[in-house]
This record gives sequence, C-alpha cells and structure tokens, in this order.
Amino acid sequence: MILVLEPDAGSAEVDRIVKTLEEKGVKVHYSKGVDKTILGLIGDKQVLSRLAVERFSGVEKVIHVSEPFKLAGRSFHPEPSRIQVGNVTIGGGAPVVIAGPCSVESRDQILETARAVKQAGAGLLRGGAFKPRSSPYSFQGLGEEGLKLLAEAGEETGLPVVSEVMDPENLDLVAEYVDILQLGARNMQNFHLLKKVGKAGKPVLLKRGLSATIEEWLMSAEYILNEGNPHVILCERGIRTFETHTRNTLDLSAVPVIRHLSHLPIIVDPSHGTGKWRYVTPMSRAALAAGADGLMVEVHPDPEVALSDGPQSLTLDNFRSMMAELSRPVARIHSGSGT
Amino acid sequence: MILVLEPDAGSAEVDRIVKTLEEKGVKVHYSKGVDKTILGLIGDKQVLSRLAVERFSGVEKVIHVSEPFKLAGRSFHPEPSRIQVGNVTIGGGAPVVIAGPCSVESRDQILETARAVKQAGAGLLRGGAFKPRSSPYSFQGLGEEGLKLLAEAGEETGLPVVSEVMDPENLDLVAEYVDILQLGARNMQNFHLLKKVGKAGKPVLLKRGLSATIEEWLMSAEYILNEGNPHVILCERGIRTFETHTRNTLDLSAVPVIRHLSHLPIIVDPSHGTGKWRYVTPMSRAALAAGADGLMVEVHPDPEVALSDGPQSLTLDNFRSMMAELSRPVARIHSGSGT
Amino acid sequence: MILVLEPDAGSAEVDRIVKTLEEKGVKVHYSKGVDKTILGLIGDKQVLSRLAVERFSGVEKVIHVSEPFKLAGRSFHPEPSRIQVGNVTIGGGAPVVIAGPCSVESRDQILETARAVKQAGAGLLRGGAFKPRSSPYSFQGLGEEGLKLLAEAGEETGLPVVSEVMDPENLDLVAEYVDILQLGARNMQNFHLLKKVGKAGKPVLLKRGLSATIEEWLMSAEYILNEGNPHVILCERGIRTFETHTRNTLDLSAVPVIRHLSHLPIIVDPSHGTGKWRYVTPMSRAALAAGADGLMVEVHPDPEVALSDGPQSLTLDNFRSMMAELSRPVARIHSGSGT
Amino acid sequence: MILVLEPDAGSAEVDRIVKTLEEKGVKVHYSKGVDKTILGLIGDKQVLSRLAVERFSGVEKVIHVSEPFKLAGRSFHPEPSRIQVGNVTIGGGAPVVIAGPCSVESRDQILETARAVKQAGAGLLRGGAFKPRSSPYSFQGLGEEGLKLLAEAGEETGLPVVSEVMDPENLDLVAEYVDILQLGARNMQNFHLLKKVGKAGKPVLLKRGLSATIEEWLMSAEYILNEGNPHVILCERGIRTFETHTRNTLDLSAVPVIRHLSHLPIIVDPSHGTGKWRYVTPMSRAALAAGADGLMVEVHPDPEVALSDGPQSLTLDNFRSMMAELSRPVARIHSGSGT
Repeated sequence: MILVLEPDAGSAEVDRIVKTLEEKGVKVHYSKGVDKTILGLIGDKQVLSRLAVERFSGVEKVIHVSEPFKLAGRSFHPEPSRIQVGNVTIGGGAPVVIAGPCSVESRDQILETARAVKQAGAGLLRGGAFKPRSSPYSFQGLGEEGLKLLAEAGEETGLPVVSEVMDPENLDLVAEYVDILQLGARNMQNFHLLKKVGKAGKPVLLKRGLSATIEEWLMSAEYILNEGNPHVILCERGIRTFETHTRNTLDLSAVPVIRHLSHLPIIVDPSHGTGKWRYVTPMSRAALAAGADGLMVEVHPDPEVALSDGPQSLTLDNFRSMMAELSRPVARIHSGSGT
Repeated sequence: MILVLEPDAGSAEVDRIVKTLEEKGVKVHYSKGVDKTILGLIGDKQVLSRLAVERFSGVEKVIHVSEPFKLAGRSFHPEPSRIQVGNVTIGGGAPVVIAGPCSVESRDQILETARAVKQAGAGLLRGGAFKPRSSPYSFQGLGEEGLKLLAEAGEETGLPVVSEVMDPENLDLVAEYVDILQLGARNMQNFHLLKKVGKAGKPVLLKRGLSATIEEWLMSAEYILNEGNPHVILCERGIRTFETHTRNTLDLSAVPVIRHLSHLPIIVDPSHGTGKWRYVTPMSRAALAAGADGLMVEVHPDPEVALSDGPQSLTLDNFRSMMAELSRPVARIHSGSGT
Repeated sequence: MILVLEPDAGSAEVDRIVKTLEEKGVKVHYSKGVDKTILGLIGDKQVLSRLAVERFSGVEKVIHVSEPFKLAGRSFHPEPSRIQVGNVTIGGGAPVVIAGPCSVESRDQILETARAVKQAGAGLLRGGAFKPRSSPYSFQGLGEEGLKLLAEAGEETGLPVVSEVMDPENLDLVAEYVDILQLGARNMQNFHLLKKVGKAGKPVLLKRGLSATIEEWLMSAEYILNEGNPHVILCERGIRTFETHTRNTLDLSAVPVIRHLSHLPIIVDPSHGTGKWRYVTPMSRAALAAGADGLMVEVHPDPEVALSDGPQSLTLDNFRSMMAELSRPVARIHSGSGT
Repeated sequence: MILVLEPDAGSAEVDRIVKTLEEKGVKVHYSKGVDKTILGLIGDKQVLSRLAVERFSGVEKVIHVSEPFKLAGRSFHPEPSRIQVGNVTIGGGAPVVIAGPCSVESRDQILETARAVKQAGAGLLRGGAFKPRSSPYSFQGLGEEGLKLLAEAGEETGLPVVSEVMDPENLDLVAEYVDILQLGARNMQNFHLLKKVGKAGKPVLLKRGLSATIEEWLMSAEYILNEGNPHVILCERGIRTFETHTRNTLDLSAVPVIRHLSHLPIIVDPSHGTGKWRYVTPMSRAALAAGADGLMVEVHPDPEVALSDGPQSLTLDNFRSMMAELSRPVARIHSGSGT
C-alpha cells in the first residue's frame, strides 16, 4: 500500500503518520520524488485494511499495490482448477456447453430440450425454477416443481443440471435437486448468500454483476472459497454500458484477464450477453476462440411462447447449427491476391 | 407496446402475428410508414408481458410505450407521499438530514455521534450493524450488538434510527430495533428481500443500485409497494461510471426525474456518492438545491480510526459546518460590473 | 416517429399538435391505448427531424422508429461492400490483417516491421505519423517524415499503407502518401473532418468513438458516404466502461450487430481494445470468430523502447505466433467422458 | 512512478530494469513488501513518459503517482484564475450566467433572446453558428451569417458573446466575431484544434468530453495553456452513462473536484446535461450550490420551432423564473416537529 502525501504536508504530519503506522506494526518506506512524497507501507493486509489511512491528515490518496484476493489468485494456485460434475470436467481442458431454457415451464418443454441439447453435444443442462425478474408482475418461475422437472430431465439424459438459487432460505431446497448452484448477476454481491453457498458443498457458478469490475468479481469468488468451497466457476454474462442495441456488452476480454489473474474456470453466457438470439452463435464462437472453458446458452423448443427470455433463446435447430459452427477454424486469412 | 416489423416481413408473417395476438385478446393497429411498418398493440399489460413478441418471426424490435411501474408512479398517486417516522416527516415538505457513522463501533462512538448530530439539526440517526463488504476479510459489523447500541442512542436523543438489513434471515432482528429498514445498493434487485421487506410493516429506505436505471429502481420500489407497504423512501447514492476520481458519480438529475415520475420521497447520500469527505458539503448543498427531500450523511467522531468508510466520513465539526452551509442562498449572480 | 402524449393532455392540445403537423405535410395516426395515447407520424424524415416535437405542449416523449442512417444501412445496399486496396479486398470474404507500429519512429523500425508482418501474412501495413496524444508533452509523431518512411516500407513490401489523419489542414498531405485514411476514435464526431475525408477519394478506416453508440458510429459513416465516398471500413477498438483492468472494453458484439445493420466491412483493433499485449492474441481470435472482416494490430520490433503504445504492442515473434493461432479451430467441445 | 513487479520476476530481470532506468538518469527505489516488490522511479516526467516501462520484462503494472497536468494544477497556480471578458469576470467570485439559443436562427430570434436574458440578469450571450450534429441531414447552423447576428445582438445589449469553433479552418472567422471561443464536447480531444485555439488570443470555454475523465479534461486544458493562453473556462455538460431518461448524466461532483485540483473556473451546462427543459432549473440551482462559477443555459423565444435542441431550451419566461430561483436558500432543514 502506498500513501501519496499532499503537496503541503509538513514534517510534523509525516512524523505523526509514520508513528501511528509503526505503532500498529507497519513498516514505512519514505520516498521523496520530484513532485510527490510517498510512503510505502509494508505489513499485514488485515491490519492495513482496518486503517482509514486515506483519512489521515496530510494524505492525498492511497494506492493499493496488491490484489485484494488471495485464494482466487494464480499465485496461490498456479495450475488451472478442474471441477468435476458428474462425468464432465470444467476447466483446464476442452470447453463444455451448458444449455437449456431460461425457465423450466413444463415437463414436455424441459425433456424435449434436454434430449435435443444432449444429442447436439451439450454437457450440462440448465433451467430456472426461481427467477429474478425486474417486475413483480412477471413470471417468477415454477419453484420446487421446476426443480423436480429439471432433475428428472437431467437424470433421463445423464446431463448434470444447473439452476439458480436466489435466496438463503431456498438454498437447501435448490441444492437437493441440482449439481451446480448458480448465483445470478444481481446476487454477485449478496454477501450473506455467498457465504451460505460457500458452505453448501456443491460447485457454484458465479455470474459477474452487471457493473462489477473483474476484481470485485474475484472478491465475491473469494467469499465462497474462504468458506471452504474450492469449486467456483466464473461466468461472464455482459456488463452494463451506454450501448443499447445489445441488452448488455459482453466483455470477452474478461476471459484472458481471468485466465491471467486466477486459476478458476471461466465460461461465457452469450444469451444474456447480447439479449438477441441472432448474435448468440457468433459470440459463442468468439467466447471459445478467446479461450473460455465453456458456454451457457439459452435454448427453447418454441421461443415465441417462452415465459422468459424468448428473444435471446435459440431454437433446437439454432442450437444444433451453433454447435456445428464451434469446430470450424477461426478464420483463413487473406493476404492479398496474386502474391 | 409497438412492434416494428422487419423490412422484408411479408403479409403472411404480418397476418400470423396479428392472428396470434388477437387470439390472446390484444387489439392490433397496423400502420405503414415511409421506411417502417409498425403494429401498435393495445391490451392487458400482463398478457403482453407474457408474450415473447420480440421473438416473433418478422418482428425487428419492440418498443415499450408505458412505464412498467404503476404503484410507484405519479398517475397512480398524484400527490407527494409523506412518510412519518417518529416526529419526523419525510417527503412533501422541508428536507431532513439522516446522519451517523457508517458502522456502529462502540457505545461511546454512537452516543457521542448521536448527541452531536442531533444538536446540529439532524432529524434521524444512521448506523450499520450488518455491513456489506466487498472483501470477506473486512470488518463485517457488530451484528445485534450494534443494533442495540444504535437503538439506545436513538432513544436517548429522540432520533428515529435507520440501519441496513442485508438478508431475509436477519430481517426480523433488524426490524425489532430500527425505525427505517435500509436496503443497500447491492440488494436493490434482491427480489426475495424486497418482497419480505414489503411485508415487514416498517418504512423502507431503498438505495439505488450501482448500475440501476431510474426505471429499474422504481420497479424495485414497486416490489415493496406491491406487498402492501406504501412507505418507501428512495436514496440516490451514486452510480458507476468511468470516472475514477470520485468513488461513484452522484446522479443528482435523479432528484427532479423521480419528482416528475413518482410520488415517493427521494433523499441523497453524498458520502457514498463521492467517497471523499471534502466533497460532501458541496454535494449536500447541491442535492437539496435540486429539490431532494433529505440527505444521508456519514459522520464519525474520529474518521481516522473508523472501521469502515473513514475517507468519506465527516467529523462532528465538519458536520456542524455543513449544516450551517445548507441555509445559505444558492448564489448571488454577477451580471457584469458597472452596468 | 411516435409521440407519446402526457397523461393529462387534453383534446385541445392534441388537436393543436395534429394541426401543426398536418400543416407541415405529416400524416398523423391517433391511437388510444390502456395507459397511453400515442400519435404515429408518417412523413419526410427531413421535415420530421426539423420539428422539435418533443417540446410540443402535451408530448411526454418521442420514440424514433426508423434508423437515422440510410446510405450505411443494409436496406439501401443489401450485399456486403467490398473495398479494394491494392491487391487486397476488405469485406465480403476472407479477413485481412493490418499490422505495424503505433508510430513510425525510424526507417529501420518501419522497414523491419513491414518485412516481418508481410512474411507472416499481413495484408496491409499501419504506422502513425501524426499522433493524437492526451498529453501535450508526449511524442506527437514524425509528421511528413513518418509518412514518407511508411510509404517507402509499403512500396518495398507491396503492402498498402494506412495512417491517421488528425485534422483537415493535413488531409492532402496524408492522402498523398497513404492508401487508406484512418480516422481516430477521438475524431469520430469531428464532422468537418468527416466531410472533408468524404471528398478525398480514398478509402477511410473509421474508428468507433470511445463512447459512441453503434448508431452514432454509423451516422458518422453516413457523413462520409453522403459526400460520395462509398469506401468506409469500420473499426471497433473498445469502448469506455467502468472496468479498469483493460484499457478499454472491446465490444465484439459490435461485429455481428454491424453485420446485421450495415453493408460496411468491420475490422477489430484488439491492441487498443485491451491495451495489453498479452490479451491481443486471444482477442484477435475472438474477433475473427465473431465474423470480423479483419484485424488491426500493433507490432513493434522492440516494444520496450516504442515511443507510444509499447505496452500493447506485439513483438515480431508474438505476431508470427498470433497469425498461426488464427487458423486453429475455435474449439473442440467436451461433452462428458465415457458417454 | 511506481513499477509493480511480477511475482516471478527474478533478480536478473530486476537488475536489467534498474540498469536501463539508471542509464536514462532515473533514480530507482527498491522496496520488497509481503506480496509484491515495487520499484519507485524518481526522475524527469518527460523522460519517464517516453519509456514503455509497462512493457519491460518482469513488470506487472505501472502506477502513476503524479498528476499528468502541470499548468492546469493548483500547485502551479494556487489562487483561482479570474478571466475578464468585457465587464464580466468569470472565476474567483460571484457566478455568471451565459444564456441564449442553441443556434442563431434569425435576427429577430437572437435579438429578442439577447434582450430578455440581459434583462433577467445574464452576463453573457451564447449562440451557435457552426453546429456539430450527429446527422448530416440535420440543420448545420447559419455559419458566418449567424456570427454576424450574434455579434450584433451582443453589441446592442452589451453582452459579451460565446460561440463554438468546430474546426481550425474557421477559427479566424469565429475569433473575429466572438469574445469567448467555445470548444465542444466532441472536440475536447481534437488536439490540433486545442493547439490552434491556444494561440488565438481569446478566452476559451472548454466543454468536457462525453466520456472524458476529469484528468483527461484537465490535460486538454493543459494543451491550451501550454500554447500561452491562460484564459480557459471549463464547462461540465454531462457524461455518458447507462441512464437513458436524461440525455447525459450531469456530473456535478466535477465542480468541487475541479476546485480541488485546478485553479481554472468551472461552469455547468444543465441544458445538455439533462436534455430536458423541465430539469434545467433544479440542476442550475444544484450546480451553483455545488460551487460552480457559472451556468450556460439554452434559451429560445419559441422552443417548439427551434432548429436544434428545442426539447432542452427554456422559454424566455422559464428563464426569468429560473433566475429568480437561484437566489433562494438551498433549504430549510426540518429536524422533527415539537422538538
């Protein structure tokens, strides 16, 4: 941690800061530059994080040098984490595809979808039972009935299943039926839920918040890891920007950035990332080309009648075409004719 | 709701759309313009919201004409809502000031602060007991002990108290001690919590999410109102933008916008809005000049040792000066010398 | 164009609006819904754009149904545009790679780079001579000398060359030396320069502004097309968001969106998009997998001593590896072991 | 400047970095912390800014400690700058109001407006002659004719006049007629124009770019100051965020931030900041309450027929009411009844 001092900080102020810090066991390096005087603080992160050094008289600003996360970082765990779910491995190898409807709506709907996505090469099945909706008047999911149907479809097809848990009171219920607990974007900083999910003993798929920095996202993963659950899968699903043509702005740079900073697997959700089915296939190709460990894609037998997220859902046919597109080469470069 | 058709939508597609909609009881107005053909849909909002019309073949995009909120809107309730808390009225009249420390840290700290802010003119006392922190290693609040101390300080000074509830499992506990339940920015779309808080029978202070649009914010208020609790106070606390000099970007335009769209009172939190104590006084003045119904300001007897948010906390002296600044005129305009 | 009326707009107000519009030759469709009354306006875009209808008494808001661009749109020109530069075709086929240093710094530097990128498969050479720098104290480019060296390197290797024009006064000078005129992100809405470049008779590479919507970007292309120059290449280079780990947020969704809305070729600049060389290769793969018509990549023989953009420049070796990566498949999906 | 080293940077790498830097005359402080090793660099800013230290092998990231601006900073010029224009002083005292139409449209329009705003207390007159429009099909301004009418209205009323210069080729023309040269948001980083304006010998009103950080904005001011023109007035006019209800998000925190970092006067444009006339008065009050040195407000005798920016323009009556609102107190606080 570095303190940049105010231009007019006098030596009495500096002495007071140094004394206060040294009393807490923090070592202080003093360094006077051309424009600025800085103090480099060396000591226990916990101690430092408890001091409101930015408020010390004479301090202009505080610069954090270390990342705030530890368990989520590459230094702590240099090899990529591999998370085993049923017969599927997520991370550290070939990418997987999680597919299924936004919401479980009926037995027929989820079974038909499960069979079709399995046949097309999906490795896991998704389906929402408790749905976070911005309007209290929108369809809120089938609840436990939806979880049962999802589990049944998973069992029949052999696909492990993923579903969202929205609140601590339903956690045990959801955990009973699913193989992976999904934490939605709006709950990325629901710290109470993060802690509880960290104790639930199931892999967690942690979506990035709409306006979360990559560092904050890793700190939310840290909450889960810190409770003793190492099985966290990150999911980029688009961030909020000024662009309105797409529902969100899919930040695919997050894929190599997470790869650089962390050992945790990262998958991409191009359905929420774009909000429009016609952009899902190109962005799925892009996500995997950037190195993602997987995709999470919304698929519905008849999106026109979907109770949620119809506009961004692929049909079963769309999904089969998408899967075929994924194995094509990225590109064949044109370097000029006749050369 | 308006459907804009794709340029190459044929009459068979249009007929199919119209037929599907009319079967659901939706009236359709067809209108062919120079570039675009549009369909105006008239019918029940619920029915319309359940149709994935954007996914209909031949539809290019969907435009929503009505606001999605109802109970939070001015048409539903033309007069400003007034919320009575103890002997303080929030909304529809003179603004109030809610002041106190970010976290309750000790009996002395909260009592000293309560007495000082009361004396300087604050109408309510704030203090956190359960703290949402981006790091699992940061101070997480004193919990119930903090609530007790806060309630004691409120009682002694006669100030109603406000504290944050972070999760449904602690709701009853928090509600037992406080006069206003605060819902933090990170929980603005914690829909489960919104519903529960809507049933708790206490006024709710609903902070705007870091990247929430004003419409989404009003929809979250709608969740609470829809459970039968009309006592919702909105709190603008800064949104996330690219600017990094301030912790957030305080969106003061939200004050007149909310005034225009809604009957709910709106207050402003310049402490989180700026993240730096030195900007709190000017932004407090600005917030009230824009028409806010109140302020929520962090005050600490010794910010240097605050366990959270020290950099943005006012000292007791700072707070007294700020209160004095609020009654000065906005400005005296200079129109040119000697004219 | 659709006018949504205020809830309390009376019939006198409506009559007045209708009369005013009809006098200007605009046809008005009146439609009363459950919550809202709307007026659909049909008429000449020019006429409509000159009326401040949003300010009419009784009007709550105005919704634009048509895209504001015409020449840049797919309806106007359904087939993808192909732009021929030397022996290279941009758009409508295999993607091309534009490579070279941020700034031309010396004869050796540009020649060595040109030969290496040519050999590795690049189709065009880039190099800045007039540099937009946020600080007046930073290196501002070699000016005409830089253009001469760039042209020489292009000639020797047979690669067409691209360089930025920053102001109308230097346009003729730059146009004399280059095959493609680049318009930088900060000049995307320099309308005077857009018009002049539209008359210069050379293909234009138009970078997206840091906070430009896709629609605004196409409107800037429209300025160029409207001057009679159909040879516009769009270049996505990252937009500004709250995320700070990358220099910008590369919006790869813009690739399929532009493909859907426009006939113009779109290329991607992952160097500025990420700001860090280590993320350039994965994001190049992602860009082409999303369907981009090409890449623009910064390459420098010795980035440590580059006078600008060193941190995001590939070495010659990095570039060769990147080119090899582009032809690999997007991914081989893992659907579960033993199934 | 501080270099944070990669965790696995070996001593050979460190030695090489130190040697390279010392050869350039940079002093290096080595400091090994618990997690990170850092190098503090002390030396000439110019030298440091020319080194691509971020690209050095072994360097993880670079942290800038000093502000990049100098002439615009408070350390360089501790007292607030006062800019004299005719008989009006901008900065360091009572705030001024600049008012007038978005575009000069006719002799009658500008004269009527000038007289009315003068009478209501405005100190300067604004009016556009060259208009930056996102569409090539929109009204582009009256050009020189507009400048002549503006100058005439200024002369008649004794109000100094402000108008925008959009390109270097028209700079002399605009400078001939106006007292203050306005640089628009879209030209904030038109560096060529900044330099030319810096030599023009007239005060400059520099609007903040739509997505410019405060630091970048001050760097653009630095370009002008560095050419020998100390008369720069900053103008906050809203930044681009995800919120769509207002045209931009007016960042009023910029007022105290600029006050803290710089000696330059700062004014606020609530018309562009909100895009809707109904929010102009509250945001004008807020801007001045936050400490702004002035306002720039769009006023039109008949906004319904304005050729540009009608929706955000005040009528003459609106303007008179707004001026009256500015001298009212910020607020009278309510501290609870019966206490």
